Amino acid sequence: MNGTDFALHTDKYEINMMYAHWVNGTAHDRAVFEAYFRRLPFGNGYAVFAGLERIIYYLRHLSFSEEDLAYLAEQEERYDPAFLDLLRHFRFRGTVYAMREGEIAFPNEPLLRVEGTNLETQLVETALLNFMNYQTLIATKASRIVQVAQGDVLLEFGSRRAQEADAAIWGARASYIAGFDATSNMLAGRKFGIPAKGTHAHSWVQGHDSEEEAFQKYAEALPDGVTLLVDTYDTLKSGVPNAIKTGRMLEAKGKRMQAIRIDSGDLAYLSKEARKQLDQAGMDYVRIVASNDLDEHIIFNLKAQGAKVDTWGVGTHLITAEDQPALGGVYKLVAREKNGDLVPVIKISGNPEKVTTPGKKDVYRLIDRKSGRAIADYITLYGEDEVVGGKRIKLFDPLHPYIYKHISQYEADALLHPIFEQGELVYDVPSLEQVRAFHQERLALFWPELLRKLNPDVYPVHLSTAAYELKMELLKAFSEEE
Amino acid sequence: MNGTDFALHTDKYEINMMYAHWVNGTAHDRAVFEAYFRRLPFGNGYAVFAGLERIIYYLRHLSFSEEDLAYLAEQEERYDPAFLDLLRHFRFRGTVYAMREGEIAFPNEPLLRVEGTNLETQLVETALLNFMNYQTLIATKASRIVQVAQGDVLLEFGSRRAQEADAAIWGARASYIAGFDATSNMLAGRKFGIPAKGTHAHSWVQGHDSEEEAFQKYAEALPDGVTLLVDTYDTLKSGVPNAIKTGRMLEAKGKRMQAIRIDSGDLAYLSKEARKQLDQAGMDYVRIVASNDLDEHIIFNLKAQGAKVDTWGVGTHLITAEDQPALGGVYKLVAREKNGDLVPVIKISGNPEKVTTPGKKDVYRLIDRKSGRAIADYITLYGEDEVVGGKRIKLFDPLHPYIYKHISQYEADALLHPIFEQGELVYDVPSLEQVRAFHQERLALFWPELLRKLNPDVYPVHLSTAAYELKMELLKAFSEEE
Repeated sequence: MNGTDFALHTDKYEINMMYAHWVNGTAHDRAVFEAYFRRLPFGNGYAVFAGLERIIYYLRHLSFSEEDLAYLAEQEERYDPAFLDLLRHFRFRGTVYAMREGEIAFPNEPLLRVEGTNLETQLVETALLNFMNYQTLIATKASRIVQVAQGDVLLEFGSRRAQEADAAIWGARASYIAGFDATSNMLAGRKFGIPAKGTHAHSWVQGHDSEEEAFQKYAEALPDGVTLLVDTYDTLKSGVPNAIKTGRMLEAKGKRMQAIRIDSGDLAYLSKEARKQLDQAGMDYVRIVASNDLDEHIIFNLKAQGAKVDTWGVGTHLITAEDQPALGGVYKLVAREKNGDLVPVIKISGNPEKVTTPGKKDVYRLIDRKSGRAIADYITLYGEDEVVGGKRIKLFDPLHPYIYKHISQYEADALLHPIFEQGELVYDVPSLEQVRAFHQERLALFWPELLRKLNPDVYPVHLSTAAYELKMELLKAFSEEE
Repeated sequence: MNGTDFALHTDKYEINMMYAHWVNGTAHDRAVFEAYFRRLPFGNGYAVFAGLERIIYYLRHLSFSEEDLAYLAEQEERYDPAFLDLLRHFRFRGTVYAMREGEIAFPNEPLLRVEGTNLETQLVETALLNFMNYQTLIATKASRIVQVAQGDVLLEFGSRRAQEADAAIWGARASYIAGFDATSNMLAGRKFGIPAKGTHAHSWVQGHDSEEEAFQKYAEALPDGVTLLVDTYDTLKSGVPNAIKTGRMLEAKGKRMQAIRIDSGDLAYLSKEARKQLDQAGMDYVRIVASNDLDEHIIFNLKAQGAKVDTWGVGTHLITAEDQPALGGVYKLVAREKNGDLVPVIKISGNPEKVTTPGKKDVYRLIDRKSGRAIADYITLYGEDEVVGGKRIKLFDPLHPYIYKHISQYEADALLHPIFEQGELVYDVPSLEQVRAFHQERLALFWPELLRKLNPDVYPVHLSTAAYELKMELLKAFSEEE
């Protein structure tokens, strides 16, 4: 689960390219790769970067076991034993810059930049994308739900429907980063310190002679603050009245039922009627938890209908990102060593949006001095210091460069931070609580129009003039060559 | 990844119910749960059961570490230390019957039956569903793709888009069960013995001064049978001609290029034109691999258009089951101990399809003696031996019981096999190759009309008269109670 056995969690073509580099004497030449996504998922206005902690752990522990090497030795490629011996002593010694977890990210800007030998930069592609793609996807989905919940309590309930164990655990963590309050998964609770919450299942009620008996026995067994599931038989005729009886019993003992949970039926109607029954019984302190295939659209509509729900348990749709279960992030070569120098490279494609932006790059968030809000993200070639110095710069649309403006009243905030320098961890890894708080801080930089779930405003990501000109130059060189 | 640290890979409500049972003195009373799904995914006519090997490993190694217990001790529920001490010595001692991996499964029939104490049957719910739901989902998705590929080679390429590492690894295995030929993931290759295959990435081509040089260097470095990616610049004008040049060079050395890969553009057009170029060059032995967001629909259509593709690399859509990323399998209490006896229990619901079928059950596949094909699946109460003895039985539609027929010329094949008896593994776990072969055997029991991807025939799943009558009786008792 942590990634100590992950050297072979890679596509075979990575190993084959490493091998071909080694045979050709270019294994230790330097290369720069950047990871980014091309489109925002779910029609959202932004993504929430996540996965860095897992990536750090992976890179720190990356080594080939003897079992790995024996497996490689028996492949049809018949790798040279000297190559396998090189792998035996392999450690990741590259330099990694990345966005901080919880950062707000946009299409076509680097979330992660990896610089190192051809060997190491190629090996890590698959695992880095696997971690970044899933965790960023779920943090983004969770963030959408947080936006519509408007402060209601949100519980992540998806383990049984997650795509295997890692997805359950790391998905719970990604949800918490984006503002969920707790998870039902206790392993995620133990590993990450996320509050773990749970009620009981229908089987508890079925396992007793009556619902009333089931509630009483459950409430007696557990300490104060129990939540009772009221929809096993009939929510309004049986479940809520029995919960109220149990609540009375608890009151007589100086305790209090915390909540009821409704897991089926029309949640708008049932929650309103349940609220009435509870209030009439003087139990306005009892909260209502709703679950059952919820997502941001259903929660939004239930709230619009005045559903009396205080807490939402969100499962399948969150943990699998059901409406778009893959982010599609890519990891592209942007520069390579040639005669001792790093030279920018481009990937051409018949599809203009797939043409890469060449060169080792940085990305800055430009923040308006007056409003304190983000104006645009700004991608520069590595080492350009215009924006760091606060100079007046030209912002132009990279697809329609004749549309432009100049700005000067801004602060430039570098989004890529040093994580590893030549294999050494130089980043002070924040606690999960710090990541969660950081995410909220970063959200506050944006206008609410960007954060809405439907037709959000489009946030601009610009190229610096130098980055744009380099791209045009390489495109031209390619076109003329042909 | 294997599941030795999975005692807390469970929802908190499982622990809370275990605790409430313990407080109430029912922790060691017996219960029977069955796992099943209600609807087939993707509009498919069948599902492919997978996940059992992982479940077996999980159950055999299920124990609480001191770290787990320390974590439980600090929960707001303030579990009694004597309960935690019971968990300290916990081992799974239940009895599990399950379908064999690779079995063809249908809605509302038990894929897995777990009998044991309230403690153990409750604890394992989350992990069992998590493993079964994902692996069965992916095996089913893969089986759809196998049906349309009609014998073409299929490669699983999804790791970078999988929902975290476990999904990549176990999804590769599920695909292989269903008939995929290889995976790109080397860890899945090492762990499960699945053939691992790989070519090279666009970055290899970008990392050289020319495509021709990149191809030559790659082909020289690797042994015979190289595959070259031809779409980095221009597939037909540059990629295929350069691949042919490399092929010539290899021929001169007595070697052969195995294939070219096309990863973008119109795969129907490009594959046909590439085939022509290769054939004109006398390289009819070079095969064509296609990749790029493929699924069963795209492959079906490309084949209908005469695409000249020999091998399909399938990634995102397979590994995430993109059109339906969760199976929705459930785990329901069907019987519980009362006064020393096992009594059947039902779960009522306003939604008729969610009403459970009470009682501990078995399921048989009835096979027509003449055709050798499956007629129907037949769910009985545990211990009913009518079908085992081959007696004439009545098959009726459980939703419309006035529609019925009698059959007698059949063989009954029990689908649930003993896996654990009171905690002891009694199942001879088959190798992955055996599972894969078993899946093909089982598919052969069905008419092709059931196997097609669009509007497949609906295969009947019947209840025995006794199982049906028990359900009606419990439903009636509930209705009259109210």
